[in-house]
Amino acid sequence: MFQAVTKTLSVASTTYVCRGILLGIRHYCKKTPTKLRVSQALSGADLGANVKVQGWVRSVRPQKANVFLHVNDGSSLQPLQVVADLSSPLVFLSLRLLTFGSAVEVTGSLKKSPHKKQPVELEADQITVIGECNPVDFPFKIKERHGLEYIRQFPHLRCRTNAFSSLLRIRSEATTAVHSYFRENDFVQIHTPIITSNDCEGAGELFQVEPSGPEIVEDEYFFSVPAFLTVSGQLHLEVISGAFSRVYTFGPTFRAENSQSRRHLAEFYMVEAEISFTESIEDLTKVMEDMFKSATEHVLAHCVEDVDLFHKHIFSFCFHKDTVDAMMKSSFPVITYTEAVDILNRSSEKFTFPTDWGCDLKTEHEKYLVKHCGNAPVFVTDYPYDLKPFYARDNQDHPERTAAAVDLLVPGVGELCGGSLREERLDLLSARLEEYLDLRRFGSVPHGGFGLGFERYLQCILGVDNIKDVIPFPRFSHSCLL
Amino acid sequence: MFQAVTKTLSVASTTYVCRGILLGIRHYCKKTPTKLRVSQALSGADLGANVKVQGWVRSVRPQKANVFLHVNDGSSLQPLQVVADLSSPLVFLSLRLLTFGSAVEVTGSLKKSPHKKQPVELEADQITVIGECNPVDFPFKIKERHGLEYIRQFPHLRCRTNAFSSLLRIRSEATTAVHSYFRENDFVQIHTPIITSNDCEGAGELFQVEPSGPEIVEDEYFFSVPAFLTVSGQLHLEVISGAFSRVYTFGPTFRAENSQSRRHLAEFYMVEAEISFTESIEDLTKVMEDMFKSATEHVLAHCVEDVDLFHKHIFSFCFHKDTVDAMMKSSFPVITYTEAVDILNRSSEKFTFPTDWGCDLKTEHEKYLVKHCGNAPVFVTDYPYDLKPFYARDNQDHPERTAAAVDLLVPGVGELCGGSLREERLDLLSARLEEYLDLRRFGSVPHGGFGLGFERYLQCILGVDNIKDVIPFPRFSHSCLL
Repeated sequence: MFQAVTKTLSVASTTYVCRGILLGIRHYCKKTPTKLRVSQALSGADLGANVKVQGWVRSVRPQKANVFLHVNDGSSLQPLQVVADLSSPLVFLSLRLLTFGSAVEVTGSLKKSPHKKQPVELEADQITVIGECNPVDFPFKIKERHGLEYIRQFPHLRCRTNAFSSLLRIRSEATTAVHSYFRENDFVQIHTPIITSNDCEGAGELFQVEPSGPEIVEDEYFFSVPAFLTVSGQLHLEVISGAFSRVYTFGPTFRAENSQSRRHLAEFYMVEAEISFTESIEDLTKVMEDMFKSATEHVLAHCVEDVDLFHKHIFSFCFHKDTVDAMMKSSFPVITYTEAVDILNRSSEKFTFPTDWGCDLKTEHEKYLVKHCGNAPVFVTDYPYDLKPFYARDNQDHPERTAAAVDLLVPGVGELCGGSLREERLDLLSARLEEYLDLRRFGSVPHGGFGLGFERYLQCILGVDNIKDVIPFPRFSHSCLL
Repeated sequence: MFQAVTKTLSVASTTYVCRGILLGIRHYCKKTPTKLRVSQALSGADLGANVKVQGWVRSVRPQKANVFLHVNDGSSLQPLQVVADLSSPLVFLSLRLLTFGSAVEVTGSLKKSPHKKQPVELEADQITVIGECNPVDFPFKIKERHGLEYIRQFPHLRCRTNAFSSLLRIRSEATTAVHSYFRENDFVQIHTPIITSNDCEGAGELFQVEPSGPEIVEDEYFFSVPAFLTVSGQLHLEVISGAFSRVYTFGPTFRAENSQSRRHLAEFYMVEAEISFTESIEDLTKVMEDMFKSATEHVLAHCVEDVDLFHKHIFSFCFHKDTVDAMMKSSFPVITYTEAVDILNRSSEKFTFPTDWGCDLKTEHEKYLVKHCGNAPVFVTDYPYDLKPFYARDNQDHPERTAAAVDLLVPGVGELCGGSLREERLDLLSARLEEYLDLRRFGSVPHGGFGLGFERYLQCILGVDNIKDVIPFPRFSHSCLL
């Protein structure tokens, strides 16, 4: 194996040194050519001679007189068609280097294409193979459609596939969209810490952090205290929300769950917001719904082709573009937990888990509720007090005691967001947790917040079944590739 | 101590229950008032009656007939002036609740202010104290200017100070600015992982990650292999740059350095970019310089008052607004390492560390070079090959072998960015590191990238001496508060 690798190495190096393997030279332009990205070339705004495009070959079709290439550089799903004259003997001799996956630099004239399939094509004066790719070793084959599961085995190469490069562009745009929403609504972004001495929800599944090397000695912690990877930025947002009435954070969070499910990762991204001077749970549901719609509208508008690829060819849920369009138009209904339990109990569906008042809503219940509400997102509010964490605000209702908490359930995914008004009343809180107290001593105000699972959001709008397919480098138990 | 806390608790709770402690009622408006953030109120666009503002009291000045408050909600440095009529007996009785740090809700009429200090003021019809604050316990005192070092002791309260809330707004805006720069220049944002099985630079100081609880057993790693917190997203960006010619990442990175210095944190933010099809080091310096200027221009334009506070009152470097303005206007000079060493050797300055060719540039050298270049940012390129990591591209020059690496040195801080063209030639690389090889097998192209320390960037443009003062929750050896 190592033999094979070094052999390929030296070939590639030779290629680089004689960077002048030219295919189909028509004329040599002395003027520096205009560098264009593929997306710019496709826009048709820069028709003319002496244009340079660099990218990776996505297809090669030699025909009678010409060779046709598709070149992609990550700037768009659609590749640029390149046409090169085969009559040059150099083309004939070097054709074997122009393989699927190889990297090329093409200079030529950008012209309107005579074909309907693409708006423009690049008539090559010069093609240089900058990086070779041995198609025998390359795990993706030309013209073959590889399943997401197959692709996932090659973390260092999956960005070379159409599906995953579309995902990366969508993820980048969705990130921009989330930030834009909060900025336009006057939220300040806070970089909440990854390493924390606090375990937030008292959740068991924490990763601990210590310098690698010698064994950890109890009284010699690096930070003097045990330190963990954050499971939520909420506490730190709450700190800042004591002076800023609107704050948010968007970053990675961690759970050491020993799970191989399609729904869980050890490292995943969360959008979390905290709002001060809240008066009711509607102060939260409004922001959740607005953010969902604003971000989705942005993604749909900016990633038309990429989203289309998912909706037409890759989605694994039983829905597609129409479901997303319907979500955007509907006003998300709000039902209480008590109403939700009533709906479940009145249904003819046989559930595996119980549906008595006080039960935790399981995925099967969440999916039923979403379907019941017309396959649209639905808010469920006022959960039993005992189901929610210590910081959720006590509704002080009787006889069934509930907390001012809310979950947003969406098609295909189930729970997308979870939030609550926070208990700002020190005496009520002190009964539950001593640690949290000092945050409430100085000008404590009613506030609330929520978190949205960013991968679940992408699954929801794209219809992707497995969470590992919407994150660049998935981490889960027994897997940390690269 | 705990006694005191619970006592305060019950007072606060009482306050909440009788949320109607009204100060200076003139008339009671039945119509729902228009909620304004302080920044909106200050803009003067919403003059008129029945306006509601919520925030924290930053100053209280009772005078003959009126009480004057300054209210801040984090949306701007400038507070809103509130004027309330003292003739109401309720004001007189409840004045003691209106303390520095307490949270209030004020309804009234927004009017042009007769004073020059502020554009508008809010004539209160109703003031409700929503959260009390005992000024005796509160660590910050009205009208006192607290040093950054003092403030740092109260991680859960430092956002209540002017200096730190300005910093948080600037940091949020600078984050937006960095993302905007890359988006406008067609870079795709990649969420590179925090947990990695790779140690990137082979740097020693890594944090290891395992689920907390039972001791780690060698063959039972959670991820099946040892896993660490990332020290750089470079490797993962390089992976993606095999299909996307422009990518970047912006997130936390980690070093388990046992350092208490003003320059180091265990958790800090890095902006990293990777560009494919590079032809020379200028492909990198151009992006570094453009990004620096574009982000700084955005921050200066959007945070005028906040930046002013730093430049006028808080800066600790020997420079201020003029230095920043000069940086923005200068074209950053580029010198080679060899030229830099010549400059150092020709100078009359006595350096602690040696300045022979081959030496590492220390902070004292970096600061001298910056001063030598007119107190402006300066690029140093082509470092000795042996000083740079294995992936830096060999310049193959003689007799002094150098690598195509570049650092950006800036006033006050020293090294702000470091980057290099990456060694894309498999045979040269294979001599150095086996692991890295598979990335170069399939369509490998010349590429390069760099990283910018985001905290150092903020220190540089604001003139802040200690890195702990430009991050919301600093983590360093022996300290992980909250």
